[in-house]
Amino acid sequence: MNKNIIISMMVVVSCSAYASRESSEPIKVIEPATGLDSAKVELGKTLWFEPRLSASNTISCNSCHNVAKGGVDNLPSSIGHKWAVGGINSPTVLNSDLNFVQFWNGRAKDLQEQAAGPIENPIEMAFSHDLAIGTLKSIPQYREWFKEAYGKEDFTITEVTDAIATFEKTLRTPNSAFDQWLKGDDSALSTEQVEGYALFKQKGCTFCHSGPLAGGQMYQKMGLVKAFETDNTDIGRAAITGNDFDKYVFKVPTLRNIELTYPYFHDGSVWDLQEAVEVMADIQLGIPVTKQEAKKITAFLHSLTGEQPVITLPHLPPSTNETARPQI
Amino acid sequence: MNKNIIISMMVVVSCSAYASRESSEPIKVIEPATGLDSAKVELGKTLWFEPRLSASNTISCNSCHNVAKGGVDNLPSSIGHKWAVGGINSPTVLNSDLNFVQFWNGRAKDLQEQAAGPIENPIEMAFSHDLAIGTLKSIPQYREWFKEAYGKEDFTITEVTDAIATFEKTLRTPNSAFDQWLKGDDSALSTEQVEGYALFKQKGCTFCHSGPLAGGQMYQKMGLVKAFETDNTDIGRAAITGNDFDKYVFKVPTLRNIELTYPYFHDGSVWDLQEAVEVMADIQLGIPVTKQEAKKITAFLHSLTGEQPVITLPHLPPSTNETARPQI
Repeated sequence: MNKNIIISMMVVVSCSAYASRESSEPIKVIEPATGLDSAKVELGKTLWFEPRLSASNTISCNSCHNVAKGGVDNLPSSIGHKWAVGGINSPTVLNSDLNFVQFWNGRAKDLQEQAAGPIENPIEMAFSHDLAIGTLKSIPQYREWFKEAYGKEDFTITEVTDAIATFEKTLRTPNSAFDQWLKGDDSALSTEQVEGYALFKQKGCTFCHSGPLAGGQMYQKMGLVKAFETDNTDIGRAAITGNDFDKYVFKVPTLRNIELTYPYFHDGSVWDLQEAVEVMADIQLGIPVTKQEAKKITAFLHSLTGEQPVITLPHLPPSTNETARPQI
Repeated sequence: MNKNIIISMMVVVSCSAYASRESSEPIKVIEPATGLDSAKVELGKTLWFEPRLSASNTISCNSCHNVAKGGVDNLPSSIGHKWAVGGINSPTVLNSDLNFVQFWNGRAKDLQEQAAGPIENPIEMAFSHDLAIGTLKSIPQYREWFKEAYGKEDFTITEVTDAIATFEKTLRTPNSAFDQWLKGDDSALSTEQVEGYALFKQKGCTFCHSGPLAGGQMYQKMGLVKAFETDNTDIGRAAITGNDFDKYVFKVPTLRNIELTYPYFHDGSVWDLQEAVEVMADIQLGIPVTKQEAKKITAFLHSLTGEQPVITLPHLPPSTNETARPQI
């Protein structure tokens, strides 16, 4: 048998092992982003770091969804314009295109729709779409970049949010230890992590935390079997639907990179991951977990940290005399 | 004559042209950084983007000296802890190691001494050195990085500021059009820029704005021949020396990358570069410049924009249960 045939067989064996373990598991592999328009990605990256999309010219998308730290700000809730404190924990931007809807209450159907929100939110960037577009159009380099990416200089908030969303779609975190294990590498997880994952399934966590995101595919009530104690006043989906039974119903968050995205829950009230596991078992599943079990599940959750995006900081083009001045 | 000899002769001609033009000009070439310890640079870069050096965990060195935008925040003065507004314009970090002293009033002798200031300034990062060190030490990855860079896990503010300063030393912006011209490339500047530079020297601007930074080598009174009108209450060097004749005496700022570092002057009161040129001629030199002359000088100043540093965003290691929580 020649060398090429042996290699071909090894590839087949490896692929089929990968397909078979992943196909029987509720959590799926995170694939890297492919097929995105590079001009839109580059423009979107620049806009992602652009504080001139905010009234004060100091707050960018990255301020609250910092790609240097798991795509979050690690605060219970974010600090916005004039130090306003937000009403809910900022979710991670990493892998966020895989969420079935955006925002905790699902009020945006996709990343493009989501990206329009913070710019106009008075406690976040506190700007307006018109002012943001006026700012970008006052800068010749942006007009050129929009023309390159969209074939026209006369862009609107639609192109701005499309570019940001296209950049966000690049922010996948593949190759976590767990994904390597899903693909057939038994050595990728420790015994404690394998046992933790078994417990995670056995206790019922995968009822909500499944798919490539280990979450992000459904809504669920926070406090399903026992009320969740919180000072946070957000009523979840009910604010959108007006239905009383949607009270405290939120999108199930992803568990990908969960070790980086503390503090946990929509109110950001829990900083310790093992404590978060214990709270979930108690109020969502209504079943006891021992400290030892919670520790194992936590060890498994650490295996969901993937390769973080490698991002070269853009160089933002200078303002002109036509650019609106910052509102401090 | 063989090809190698011809190439050697060309190199000699080119080097001597470079040396001869540069040696006779008051502004010198910006050289790229060399010989810096890579472990310290990498650690310093991580600390540069580290918001956990601030009380709120939201303000990093990069917040006010944004390397994506000329090393500044493009605000009259910076926004700090709880939206406090600073008393003086944030100078650029680009090429800042070439300044003869640091801060507008020269109160720090070098970048390392400077870096200690903002962490403890109540209207900037509003933290303390002890708390900052405690935060970093609570994170195992930082202990490892400090050990790699400094040979010990038991680091202090000295190592923290040394690492930050070492990273800052990498932030040179070589190869500006002006530097290419200084090196002998006549085509690097337009006729208007060459004429502008001639005016710049002829009017006396190079008395203060000389050397590789086109500034940063001396103190000078703001309002040397005519008082500078400002609402800003900073008295400059006098606050350090206690001498009345040091009132409104500041370090002469660099003109490198000046098109990116608006608004201008220590009070950030002037947004238009040509207007800044006209004000300088009026209050510092006491000589008239025509609009046409100021326009040419401004065109020359645009040639001082160098290659901006290419920076890959670090991945900040997660906090632990021992890490102090943010103070919002």
